[in-house]
Amino acid sequence: MVVIVVIVTRVRETRIKWARNCGCSIRCWVQGKEIQSIGDKVGVGCMVGACHSCENCKNDLENYCPKSIFSYNATYYDQTRTYGGYSDVMVANERYVILMPENLPLDAAAPYCVLGSRTSPSKEKEAIQHLGADSFLISRNPDQMQAAMNTLDGIIDTVSAVHPLQPLFGLLKSHGKLILIGAPEKPLELPVLPLLMGRKLAAGSFTGGMKETQEMIDFAGKHNITADIEIIPMDYVNTAMDRLSRADVKYRFVIDIAKTLNIA
Amino acid sequence: MVVIVVIVTRVRETRIKWARNCGCSIRCWVQGKEIQSIGDKVGVGCMVGACHSCENCKNDLENYCPKSIFSYNATYYDQTRTYGGYSDVMVANERYVILMPENLPLDAAAPYCVLGSRTSPSKEKEAIQHLGADSFLISRNPDQMQAAMNTLDGIIDTVSAVHPLQPLFGLLKSHGKLILIGAPEKPLELPVLPLLMGRKLAAGSFTGGMKETQEMIDFAGKHNITADIEIIPMDYVNTAMDRLSRADVKYRFVIDIAKTLNIA
Repeated sequence: MVVIVVIVTRVRETRIKWARNCGCSIRCWVQGKEIQSIGDKVGVGCMVGACHSCENCKNDLENYCPKSIFSYNATYYDQTRTYGGYSDVMVANERYVILMPENLPLDAAAPYCVLGSRTSPSKEKEAIQHLGADSFLISRNPDQMQAAMNTLDGIIDTVSAVHPLQPLFGLLKSHGKLILIGAPEKPLELPVLPLLMGRKLAAGSFTGGMKETQEMIDFAGKHNITADIEIIPMDYVNTAMDRLSRADVKYRFVIDIAKTLNIA
Repeated sequence: MVVIVVIVTRVRETRIKWARNCGCSIRCWVQGKEIQSIGDKVGVGCMVGACHSCENCKNDLENYCPKSIFSYNATYYDQTRTYGGYSDVMVANERYVILMPENLPLDAAAPYCVLGSRTSPSKEKEAIQHLGADSFLISRNPDQMQAAMNTLDGIIDTVSAVHPLQPLFGLLKSHGKLILIGAPEKPLELPVLPLLMGRKLAAGSFTGGMKETQEMIDFAGKHNITADIEIIPMDYVNTAMDRLSRADVKYRFVIDIAKTLNIA
Protein backbone atom coordinates (compact mmCIF):
# COMPACT_ATOMS: atom_id res chain seq x y z
CA MET A 1 0.00 0.00 0.00
CA VAL A 2 2.38 2.68 -1.15
CA VAL A 3 0.09 4.14 -3.78
CA ILE A 4 -0.22 7.86 -3.21
CA VAL A 5 -3.09 10.13 -4.05
CA VAL A 6 -1.61 13.42 -5.13
CA ILE A 7 -3.80 16.49 -5.08
CA VAL A 8 -2.57 18.92 -7.67
CA THR A 9 -5.73 20.48 -9.03
CA ARG A 10 -5.76 24.23 -9.37
CA VAL A 11 -6.73 25.98 -6.21
CA ARG A 12 -9.74 27.67 -7.74
CA GLU A 13 -11.16 24.34 -8.73
CA THR A 14 -10.21 22.57 -5.58
CA ARG A 15 -13.00 22.42 -3.05
CA ILE A 16 -11.02 21.89 0.12
CA LYS A 17 -13.24 22.12 3.13
CA TRP A 18 -12.36 21.97 6.71
CA ALA A 19 -14.46 21.32 9.74
CA ARG A 20 -13.36 21.69 13.31
CA ASN A 21 -9.69 21.48 12.53
CA CYS A 22 -9.62 17.91 11.38
CA GLY A 23 -11.47 17.25 8.15
CA CYS A 24 -11.24 18.16 4.53
CA SER A 25 -12.84 17.41 1.21
CA ILE A 26 -10.82 17.73 -1.94
CA ARG A 27 -10.66 17.09 -5.66
CA CYS A 28 -7.87 14.69 -6.35
CA TRP A 29 -5.29 13.47 -8.76
CA VAL A 30 -4.65 9.77 -8.46
CA GLN A 31 -1.36 8.14 -9.19
CA GLY A 32 -1.01 4.38 -9.29
CA LYS A 33 -3.77 1.97 -8.36
CA GLU A 34 -6.97 3.64 -9.38
CA ILE A 35 -9.48 3.22 -6.62
CA GLN A 36 -10.26 6.83 -7.29
CA SER A 37 -9.95 8.45 -10.71
CA ILE A 38 -8.75 11.89 -11.71
CA GLY A 39 -11.48 14.40 -10.98
CA ASP A 40 -13.32 12.25 -8.45
CA LYS A 41 -14.66 14.06 -5.45
CA VAL A 42 -12.87 12.70 -2.41
CA GLY A 43 -12.35 13.49 1.23
CA VAL A 44 -9.74 12.94 3.88
CA GLY A 45 -10.84 12.58 7.47
CA CYS A 46 -9.00 12.56 10.78
CA MET A 47 -6.43 9.96 9.79
CA VAL A 48 -3.74 9.66 7.18
CA GLY A 49 -1.76 6.69 8.41
CA ALA A 50 -1.44 3.66 10.69
CA CYS A 51 0.75 0.56 11.10
CA HIS A 52 -1.39 -1.62 8.78
CA SER A 53 -0.26 -4.80 10.50
CA CYS A 54 -1.93 -4.85 13.93
CA GLU A 55 -5.21 -6.58 14.73
CA ASN A 56 -7.16 -3.32 14.46
CA CYS A 57 -5.71 -2.41 11.07
CA LYS A 58 -6.42 -5.92 9.80
CA ASN A 59 -10.02 -5.50 10.91
CA ASP A 60 -10.45 -2.17 9.10
CA LEU A 61 -10.27 -0.29 12.37
CA GLU A 62 -7.19 1.82 11.66
CA ASN A 63 -8.77 4.40 13.93
CA TYR A 64 -7.85 2.24 16.93
CA CYS A 65 -4.34 1.39 15.74
CA PRO A 66 -1.87 2.58 18.38
CA LYS A 67 0.27 3.99 15.57
CA SER A 68 -2.50 5.79 13.69
CA ILE A 69 -1.46 9.18 12.34
CA PHE A 70 -3.84 12.10 12.62
CA SER A 71 -4.26 14.30 9.58
CA TYR A 72 -3.44 17.35 11.66
CA ASN A 73 -0.81 18.17 14.24
CA ALA A 74 0.86 14.77 13.90
CA THR A 75 4.13 13.44 12.53
CA TYR A 76 3.85 11.55 9.27
CA TYR A 77 5.93 8.46 8.32
CA ASP A 78 8.53 10.74 6.72
CA GLN A 79 8.73 12.90 9.87
CA THR A 80 6.91 15.82 8.24
CA ARG A 81 4.11 17.52 10.12
CA THR A 82 0.46 17.04 9.11
CA TYR A 83 -1.69 20.15 8.76
CA GLY A 84 -5.11 18.69 8.00
CA GLY A 85 -7.56 20.78 6.03
CA TYR A 86 -5.66 24.04 6.40
CA SER A 87 -3.86 23.31 3.14
CA ASP A 88 -4.67 23.95 -0.49
CA VAL A 89 -2.86 20.85 -1.62
CA MET A 90 -2.76 17.50 0.09
CA VAL A 91 -1.04 14.19 -0.50
CA ALA A 92 -2.56 11.10 1.06
CA ASN A 93 -2.21 7.36 0.94
CA GLU A 94 -5.23 6.06 -0.95
CA ARG A 95 -6.30 3.99 2.05
CA TYR A 96 -7.18 7.25 3.78
CA VAL A 97 -9.08 8.79 0.93
CA ILE A 98 -12.86 8.64 1.04
CA LEU A 99 -14.73 8.62 -2.26
CA MET A 100 -17.54 11.18 -2.00
CA PRO A 101 -20.84 10.39 -3.73
CA GLU A 102 -21.30 12.49 -6.87
CA ASN A 103 -24.72 13.74 -5.77
CA LEU A 104 -23.55 15.26 -2.48
CA PRO A 105 -22.16 18.80 -2.43
CA LEU A 106 -18.64 18.72 -0.99
CA ASP A 107 -19.22 21.48 1.51
CA ALA A 108 -22.31 19.96 3.10
CA ALA A 109 -20.80 16.47 3.04
CA ALA A 110 -17.41 17.50 4.44
CA PRO A 111 -18.47 17.21 8.10
CA TYR A 112 -19.17 13.51 7.58
CA CYS A 113 -15.44 12.89 7.27
CA VAL A 114 -15.13 13.73 10.94
CA LEU A 115 -17.10 13.49 14.17
CA GLY A 116 -19.90 14.91 16.19
CA SER A 117 -22.30 17.80 16.34
CA ARG A 118 -23.24 20.54 18.77
CA THR A 119 -26.54 21.85 19.98
CA SER A 120 -27.84 24.25 22.60
CA PRO A 121 -31.15 25.10 24.28
CA SER A 122 -31.80 27.92 21.79
CA LYS A 123 -32.12 25.41 18.98
CA GLU A 124 -35.21 23.59 20.20
CA LYS A 125 -37.63 24.95 17.58
CA GLU A 126 -35.21 24.29 14.76
CA ALA A 127 -34.39 20.81 15.99
CA ILE A 128 -38.03 19.80 15.95
CA GLN A 129 -39.29 21.69 12.91
CA HIS A 130 -36.27 21.53 10.65
CA LEU A 131 -34.28 18.50 11.77
CA GLY A 132 -37.27 16.32 12.61
CA ALA A 133 -36.38 15.57 16.22
CA ASP A 134 -39.22 13.84 18.08
CA SER A 135 -38.35 15.63 21.28
CA PHE A 136 -35.88 18.13 22.72
CA LEU A 137 -34.69 17.70 26.27
CA ILE A 138 -32.63 20.31 28.08
CA SER A 139 -30.38 18.65 30.63
CA ARG A 140 -30.35 21.75 32.83
CA ASN A 141 -34.12 21.66 33.21
CA PRO A 142 -34.87 19.50 36.28
CA ASP A 143 -38.57 19.05 35.45
CA GLN A 144 -37.85 17.84 31.93
CA MET A 145 -35.11 15.56 33.25
CA GLN A 146 -37.36 14.11 35.94
CA ALA A 147 -40.13 13.44 33.40
CA ALA A 148 -37.71 11.62 31.11
CA MET A 149 -36.19 9.35 33.78
CA ASN A 150 -35.77 5.69 32.73
CA THR A 151 -37.07 6.30 29.20
CA LEU A 152 -34.02 6.20 26.92
CA ASP A 153 -32.31 3.19 25.37
CA GLY A 154 -29.18 5.13 24.55
CA ILE A 155 -27.52 8.52 24.72
CA ILE A 156 -24.78 9.84 22.46
CA ASP A 157 -22.95 12.32 24.64
CA THR A 158 -21.05 14.87 22.54
CA VAL A 159 -20.12 17.17 25.43
CA SER A 160 -16.41 17.95 25.58
CA ALA A 161 -16.56 19.76 28.92
CA VAL A 162 -16.51 18.12 32.32
CA HIS A 163 -20.14 17.31 33.12
CA PRO A 164 -22.08 15.06 35.50
CA LEU A 165 -22.96 11.59 34.23
CA GLN A 166 -25.37 10.67 37.03
CA PRO A 167 -28.35 12.54 35.47
CA LEU A 168 -27.66 10.91 32.11
CA PHE A 169 -27.62 7.41 33.63
CA GLY A 170 -30.92 8.37 35.26
CA LEU A 171 -32.45 8.96 31.82
CA LEU A 172 -31.45 5.50 30.62
CA LYS A 173 -33.65 2.44 30.97
CA SER A 174 -32.12 -0.74 32.35
CA HIS A 175 -29.44 -2.04 29.98
CA GLY A 176 -29.13 1.47 28.47
CA LYS A 177 -25.94 2.71 26.88
CA LEU A 178 -24.19 6.04 27.31
CA ILE A 179 -21.83 6.58 24.39
CA LEU A 180 -19.22 9.25 25.02
CA ILE A 181 -17.73 10.93 21.99
CA GLY A 182 -16.62 14.20 23.57
CA ALA A 183 -13.21 14.33 25.22
CA PRO A 184 -13.24 16.31 28.48
CA GLU A 185 -9.78 17.26 29.67
CA LYS A 186 -10.37 15.89 33.17
CA PRO A 187 -11.89 12.56 34.23
CA LEU A 188 -15.66 12.50 34.74
CA GLU A 189 -17.31 11.21 37.89
CA LEU A 190 -18.62 7.72 37.30
CA PRO A 191 -21.40 6.76 39.72
CA VAL A 192 -21.10 2.98 39.92
CA LEU A 193 -24.39 2.01 41.53
CA PRO A 194 -26.57 3.10 38.57
CA LEU A 195 -24.35 0.98 36.32
CA LEU A 196 -24.73 -2.03 38.59
CA MET A 197 -28.39 -1.73 39.39
CA GLY A 198 -29.44 -1.14 35.80
CA ARG A 199 -26.78 -3.09 33.91
CA LYS A 200 -25.97 0.16 32.15
CA LEU A 201 -22.72 1.04 30.46
CA ALA A 202 -20.54 3.95 29.49
CA ALA A 203 -18.56 3.44 26.32
CA GLY A 204 -16.36 5.61 24.20
CA SER A 205 -16.25 5.90 20.47
CA PHE A 206 -13.78 7.68 18.28
CA THR A 207 -13.97 8.32 14.55
CA GLY A 208 -14.75 5.28 12.40
CA GLY A 209 -12.28 3.20 10.45
CA MET A 210 -11.89 3.94 6.74
CA LYS A 211 -14.23 1.11 5.72
CA GLU A 212 -16.90 2.26 8.15
CA THR A 213 -16.48 5.86 7.05
CA GLN A 214 -16.85 4.98 3.37
CA GLU A 215 -19.99 2.97 4.18
CA MET A 216 -21.44 5.89 6.09
CA ILE A 217 -20.71 8.34 3.27
CA ASP A 218 -22.19 5.94 0.71
CA PHE A 219 -25.31 5.67 2.86
CA ALA A 220 -25.53 9.47 3.02
CA GLY A 221 -25.18 9.64 -0.76
CA LYS A 222 -27.82 6.97 -1.36
CA HIS A 223 -30.32 8.77 0.83
CA ASN A 224 -29.16 12.26 -0.13
CA ILE A 225 -28.36 13.25 3.43
CA THR A 226 -26.20 16.32 3.95
CA ALA A 227 -25.12 18.23 7.02
CA ASP A 228 -26.36 21.69 7.93
CA ILE A 229 -23.33 23.89 7.64
CA GLU A 230 -22.19 27.47 7.85
CA ILE A 231 -19.59 28.35 5.26
CA ILE A 232 -16.89 30.72 6.44
CA PRO A 233 -13.78 32.29 4.95
CA MET A 234 -10.33 31.31 6.19
CA ASP A 235 -9.78 34.54 8.13
CA TYR A 236 -12.90 33.85 10.19
CA VAL A 237 -11.36 30.78 11.85
CA ASN A 238 -10.55 32.36 15.22
CA THR A 239 -14.01 33.87 15.50
CA ALA A 240 -15.46 30.50 14.54
CA MET A 241 -13.45 28.82 17.31
CA ASP A 242 -14.83 31.30 19.82
CA ARG A 243 -18.35 30.66 18.60
CA LEU A 244 -17.77 26.89 18.72
CA SER A 245 -16.82 27.16 22.37
CA ARG A 246 -20.24 28.76 22.96
CA ALA A 247 -21.98 26.10 20.82
CA ASP A 248 -22.98 28.96 18.54
CA VAL A 249 -23.01 27.18 15.20
CA LYS A 250 -25.67 25.51 13.07
CA TYR A 251 -24.21 22.94 13.01
CA ARG A 252 -20.78 22.85 11.46
CA PHE A 253 -18.37 25.47 10.19
CA VAL A 254 -16.88 24.67 6.83
CA ILE A 255 -14.05 26.83 5.48
CA ASP A 256 -14.10 27.64 1.83
CA ILE A 257 -10.38 27.17 1.35
CA ALA A 258 -10.48 27.48 -2.42
CA LYS A 259 -11.94 30.98 -2.37
CA THR A 260 -10.28 32.36 0.72
CA LEU A 261 -6.88 30.81 1.33
CA ASN A 262 -4.20 33.24 0.23
CA ILE A 263 -1.54 31.53 -1.82
CA ALA A 264 1.94 32.96 -1.69
CA MET B 1 -47.68 -16.61 41.10
CA VAL B 2 -48.88 -16.81 44.67
CA VAL B 3 -47.55 -20.28 45.37
CA ILE B 4 -45.38 -20.20 48.48
CA VAL B 5 -42.45 -22.38 49.35
CA VAL B 6 -42.57 -22.95 53.08
CA ILE B 7 -39.45 -24.08 54.84
CA VAL B 8 -40.38 -26.00 57.94
CA THR B 9 -37.81 -28.77 58.16
CA ARG B 10 -36.24 -29.33 61.52
CA VAL B 11 -33.32 -27.16 62.21
CA ARG B 12 -30.89 -30.00 62.62
CA GLU B 13 -31.74 -31.27 59.17
CA THR B 14 -31.91 -27.90 57.54
CA ARG B 15 -28.74 -26.86 55.86
CA ILE B 16 -29.18 -23.16 55.85
CA LYS B 17 -26.09 -21.44 54.65
CA TRP B 18 -25.35 -17.81 54.43
CA ALA B 19 -22.73 -15.95 52.51
CA ARG B 20 -21.90 -12.29 52.86
CA ASN B 21 -25.22 -11.36 54.37
CA CYS B 22 -27.35 -12.03 51.35
CA GLY B 23 -27.65 -15.67 50.43
CA CYS B 24 -28.97 -18.87 51.86
CA SER B 25 -29.41 -22.48 50.93
CA ILE B 26 -32.14 -24.48 52.54
CA ARG B 27 -34.10 -27.69 52.53
CA CYS B 28 -37.69 -26.90 51.74
CA TRP B 29 -41.29 -27.83 52.12
CA VAL B 30 -43.34 -27.00 49.09
CA GLN B 31 -46.98 -26.05 49.22
CA GLY B 32 -49.03 -25.72 46.05
CA LYS B 33 -47.57 -25.92 42.56
CA GLU B 34 -44.71 -28.37 42.78
CA ILE B 35 -41.78 -26.98 40.90
CA GLN B 36 -39.79 -28.19 43.84
CA SER B 37 -40.71 -31.22 45.91
CA ILE B 38 -40.52 -31.86 49.62
CA GLY B 39 -36.94 -32.58 50.53
CA ASP B 40 -35.41 -30.96 47.49
CA LYS B 41 -32.27 -29.00 48.09
CA VAL B 42 -32.98 -25.39 47.22
CA GLY B 43 -31.46 -21.96 47.62
CA VAL B 44 -32.64 -18.38 47.87
CA GLY B 45 -30.39 -15.63 46.58
CA CYS B 46 -30.44 -11.86 46.89
CA MET B 47 -34.03 -11.40 45.83
CA VAL B 48 -37.38 -12.53 47.09
CA GLY B 49 -39.77 -10.33 45.11
CA ALA B 50 -40.39 -7.91 42.23
CA CYS B 51 -43.32 -6.36 40.35
CA HIS B 52 -43.59 -9.20 37.81
CA SER B 53 -45.18 -6.94 35.22
CA CYS B 54 -42.42 -4.63 33.96
CA GLU B 55 -40.28 -5.23 30.91
CA ASN B 56 -37.40 -6.58 33.01
CA CYS B 57 -39.59 -9.03 34.92
CA LYS B 58 -41.14 -10.22 31.66
CA ASN B 59 -37.65 -10.87 30.34
CA ASP B 60 -36.59 -12.91 33.38
CA LEU B 61 -34.48 -10.05 34.66
CA GLU B 62 -36.26 -9.47 37.98
CA ASN B 63 -32.90 -8.33 39.27
CA TYR B 64 -33.30 -5.09 37.32
CA CYS B 65 -36.96 -4.53 38.24
CA PRO B 66 -37.24 -1.16 40.00
CA LYS B 67 -39.48 -2.81 42.58
CA SER B 68 -37.34 -5.86 43.26
CA ILE B 69 -37.20 -6.86 46.90
CA PHE B 70 -33.91 -7.90 48.45
CA SER B 71 -33.91 -10.97 50.65
CA TYR B 72 -32.31 -8.98 53.43
CA ASN B 73 -32.90 -5.57 54.96
CA ALA B 74 -35.87 -4.87 52.68
CA THR B 75 -39.63 -4.53 53.08
CA TYR B 76 -41.65 -7.45 51.72
CA TYR B 77 -45.05 -7.13 49.98
CA ASP B 78 -46.77 -7.57 53.36
CA GLN B 79 -44.62 -4.84 54.95
CA THR B 80 -42.59 -7.32 57.00
CA ARG B 81 -38.83 -7.02 57.06
CA THR B 82 -36.62 -9.50 55.20
CA TYR B 83 -33.68 -11.02 57.09
CA GLY B 84 -31.97 -13.10 54.41
CA GLY B 85 -29.96 -16.09 55.50
CA TYR B 86 -29.82 -15.20 59.17
CA SER B 87 -32.94 -17.27 59.76
CA ASP B 88 -33.56 -20.92 60.48
CA VAL B 89 -36.87 -20.89 58.66
CA MET B 90 -37.72 -19.05 55.49
CA VAL B 91 -40.80 -18.55 53.36
CA ALA B 92 -40.30 -17.58 49.73
CA ASN B 93 -42.30 -17.25 46.56
CA GLU B 94 -41.32 -20.19 44.36
CA ARG B 95 -40.11 -17.82 41.63
CA TYR B 96 -37.23 -16.90 43.92
CA VAL B 97 -36.27 -20.42 44.87
CA ILE B 98 -33.32 -21.99 43.10
CA LEU B 99 -33.27 -25.76 42.75
CA MET B 100 -29.83 -26.97 43.79
CA PRO B 101 -28.33 -29.93 41.92
CA GLU B 102 -28.36 -33.09 44.02
CA ASN B 103 -24.65 -33.73 43.50
CA LEU B 104 -23.47 -30.40 44.89
CA PRO B 105 -22.95 -30.01 48.65
CA LEU B 106 -25.14 -27.16 49.87
CA ASP B 107 -22.37 -25.39 51.75
CA ALA B 108 -19.95 -25.22 48.84
CA ALA B 109 -22.73 -24.34 46.39
CA ALA B 110 -24.33 -21.67 48.58
CA PRO B 111 -22.06 -18.85 47.37
CA TYR B 112 -23.41 -19.33 43.84
CA CYS B 113 -26.74 -17.89 44.93
CA VAL B 114 -25.03 -14.55 45.30
CA LEU B 115 -22.21 -12.52 43.79
CA GLY B 116 -18.49 -12.09 43.54
CA SER B 117 -15.27 -13.23 45.09
CA ARG B 118 -12.27 -11.69 46.78
CA THR B 119 -8.60 -12.14 46.35
CA SER B 120 -5.36 -10.55 47.55
CA PRO B 121 -1.66 -10.59 46.63
CA SER B 122 -0.95 -13.30 49.21
CA LYS B 123 -3.03 -15.79 47.24
CA GLU B 124 -0.90 -15.95 44.12
CA LYS B 125 0.48 -19.46 44.66
CA GLU B 126 -2.91 -20.84 45.52
CA ALA B 127 -4.61 -19.12 42.58
CA ILE B 128 -2.22 -20.71 40.12
CA GLN B 129 -1.67 -24.12 41.71
CA HIS B 130 -5.09 -24.78 43.18
CA LEU B 131 -7.54 -22.67 41.17
CA GLY B 132 -5.81 -23.09 37.83
CA ALA B 133 -5.29 -19.42 37.03
CA ASP B 134 -3.05 -18.89 34.00
CA SER B 135 -1.55 -15.79 35.50
CA PHE B 136 -1.73 -13.60 38.59
CA LEU B 137 -1.35 -9.86 38.21
CA ILE B 138 -1.01 -7.51 41.17
CA SER B 139 -2.42 -4.12 40.27
CA ARG B 140 -0.11 -2.37 42.74
CA ASN B 141 2.96 -3.71 41.00
CA PRO B 142 3.90 -1.14 38.31
CA ASP B 143 6.24 -3.50 36.45
CA GLN B 144 3.63 -6.23 36.17
CA MET B 145 1.02 -3.68 35.12
CA GLN B 146 3.30 -2.18 32.48
CA ALA B 147 4.08 -5.62 31.05
CA ALA B 148 0.39 -6.45 30.79
CA MET B 149 -0.69 -3.23 29.04
CA ASN B 150 -3.10 -3.73 26.13
CA THR B 151 -3.32 -7.49 26.61
CA LEU B 152 -6.73 -8.14 28.16
CA ASP B 153 -10.08 -8.53 26.44
CA GLY B 154 -12.03 -8.00 29.62
CA ILE B 155 -11.74 -7.36 33.33
CA ILE B 156 -14.27 -8.26 36.00
CA ASP B 157 -13.65 -5.66 38.69
CA THR B 158 -14.91 -6.86 42.08
CA VAL B 159 -13.36 -4.06 44.11
CA SER B 160 -15.85 -2.32 46.38
CA ALA B 161 -13.50 0.45 47.48
CA VAL B 162 -12.80 3.63 45.54
CA HIS B 163 -9.98 2.81 43.14
CA PRO B 164 -8.44 4.20 39.95
CA LEU B 165 -9.84 2.93 36.66
CA GLN B 166 -7.17 4.41 34.41
CA PRO B 167 -4.66 1.55 35.01
CA LEU B 168 -7.38 -1.01 34.33
CA PHE B 169 -8.33 0.60 31.02
CA GLY B 170 -4.62 0.52 30.22
CA LEU B 171 -4.61 -3.27 30.60
CA LEU B 172 -7.46 -3.65 28.11
CA LYS B 173 -6.96 -4.10 24.40
CA SER B 174 -9.00 -1.95 22.02
CA HIS B 175 -12.70 -2.77 22.36
CA GLY B 176 -12.02 -4.24 25.81
CA LYS B 177 -14.64 -4.32 28.51
CA LEU B 178 -14.34 -3.38 32.18
CA ILE B 179 -17.21 -4.97 34.08
CA LEU B 180 -17.78 -3.44 37.50
CA ILE B 181 -19.51 -5.60 40.07
CA GLY B 182 -18.24 -3.93 43.24
CA ALA B 183 -20.15 -0.95 44.58
CA PRO B 184 -17.85 1.80 45.87
CA GLU B 185 -19.63 4.34 48.02
CA LYS B 186 -18.27 7.29 46.06
CA PRO B 187 -18.10 7.81 42.29
CA LEU B 188 -14.96 6.60 40.54
CA GLU B 189 -12.89 8.75 38.23
CA LEU B 190 -13.67 7.89 34.63
CA PRO B 191 -10.87 8.86 32.24
CA VAL B 192 -12.72 9.47 28.97
CA LEU B 193 -9.88 9.50 26.47
CA PRO B 194 -8.95 5.81 26.93
CA LEU B 195 -12.60 4.94 26.31
CA LEU B 196 -12.69 7.00 23.14
CA MET B 197 -9.33 6.06 21.71
CA GLY B 198 -9.79 2.36 22.32
CA ARG B 199 -13.58 2.01 21.98
CA LYS B 200 -13.49 0.55 25.48
CA LEU B 201 -16.38 0.43 27.89
CA ALA B 202 -17.21 0.34 31.56
CA ALA B 203 -20.36 -1.57 32.41
CA GLY B 204 -22.05 -2.61 35.60
CA SER B 205 -23.59 -5.93 36.44
CA PHE B 206 -25.64 -6.90 39.41
CA THR B 207 -26.81 -10.38 40.44
CA GLY B 208 -28.47 -12.41 37.70
CA GLY B 209 -32.18 -12.90 37.18
CA MET B 210 -33.74 -16.10 38.55
CA LYS B 211 -33.61 -17.84 35.16
CA GLU B 212 -29.95 -16.94 34.68
CA THR B 213 -29.14 -18.01 38.23
CA GLN B 214 -30.83 -21.38 37.81
CA GLU B 215 -28.92 -21.92 34.55
CA MET B 216 -25.64 -21.07 36.27
CA ILE B 217 -26.34 -23.45 39.16
CA ASP B 218 -27.36 -26.21 36.73
CA PHE B 219 -24.10 -25.65 34.86
CA ALA B 220 -22.16 -25.92 38.12
CA GLY B 221 -24.00 -29.14 38.96
CA LYS B 222 -23.38 -30.64 35.53
CA HIS B 223 -19.67 -29.95 35.73
CA ASN B 224 -19.41 -30.56 39.46
CA ILE B 225 -18.07 -27.09 40.20
CA THR B 226 -18.16 -25.90 43.79
CA ALA B 227 -16.87 -22.82 45.55
CA ASP B 228 -13.95 -22.82 47.97
CA ILE B 229 -15.47 -21.92 51.30
CA GLU B 230 -14.68 -21.48 54.94
CA ILE B 231 -17.44 -22.71 57.21
CA ILE B 232 -18.01 -20.65 60.31
CA PRO B 233 -20.40 -20.73 63.25
CA MET B 234 -23.01 -18.00 63.71
CA ASP B 235 -21.18 -16.29 66.56
CA TYR B 236 -18.15 -15.76 64.31
CA VAL B 237 -20.04 -13.36 62.00
CA ASN B 238 -18.53 -10.12 63.28
CA THR B 239 -15.01 -11.52 63.10
CA ALA B 240 -15.77 -12.74 59.60
CA MET B 241 -16.93 -9.26 58.58
CA ASP B 242 -13.65 -7.81 59.86
CA ARG B 243 -11.70 -10.42 57.94
CA LEU B 244 -13.78 -9.79 54.80
CA SER B 245 -12.85 -6.12 54.94
CA ARG B 246 -9.20 -7.22 54.81
CA ALA B 247 -9.93 -9.71 51.98
CA ASP B 248 -8.82 -12.38 54.43
CA VAL B 249 -11.02 -15.25 53.29
CA LYS B 250 -10.57 -18.22 50.95
CA TYR B 251 -12.91 -17.42 49.30
CA ARG B 252 -16.30 -17.28 50.92
CA PHE B 253 -17.56 -17.55 54.46
CA VAL B 254 -20.53 -19.84 54.88
CA ILE B 255 -22.37 -19.95 58.18
CA ASP B 256 -23.54 -23.29 59.39
CA ILE B 257 -26.89 -22.03 60.64
CA ALA B 258 -28.27 -25.46 61.39
CA LYS B 259 -25.56 -26.32 63.87
CA THR B 260 -24.94 -22.93 65.40
CA LEU B 261 -28.04 -20.74 65.38
CA ASN B 262 -29.54 -20.68 68.85
CA ILE B 263 -33.29 -21.12 68.75
CA ALA B 264 -35.30 -19.46 71.49
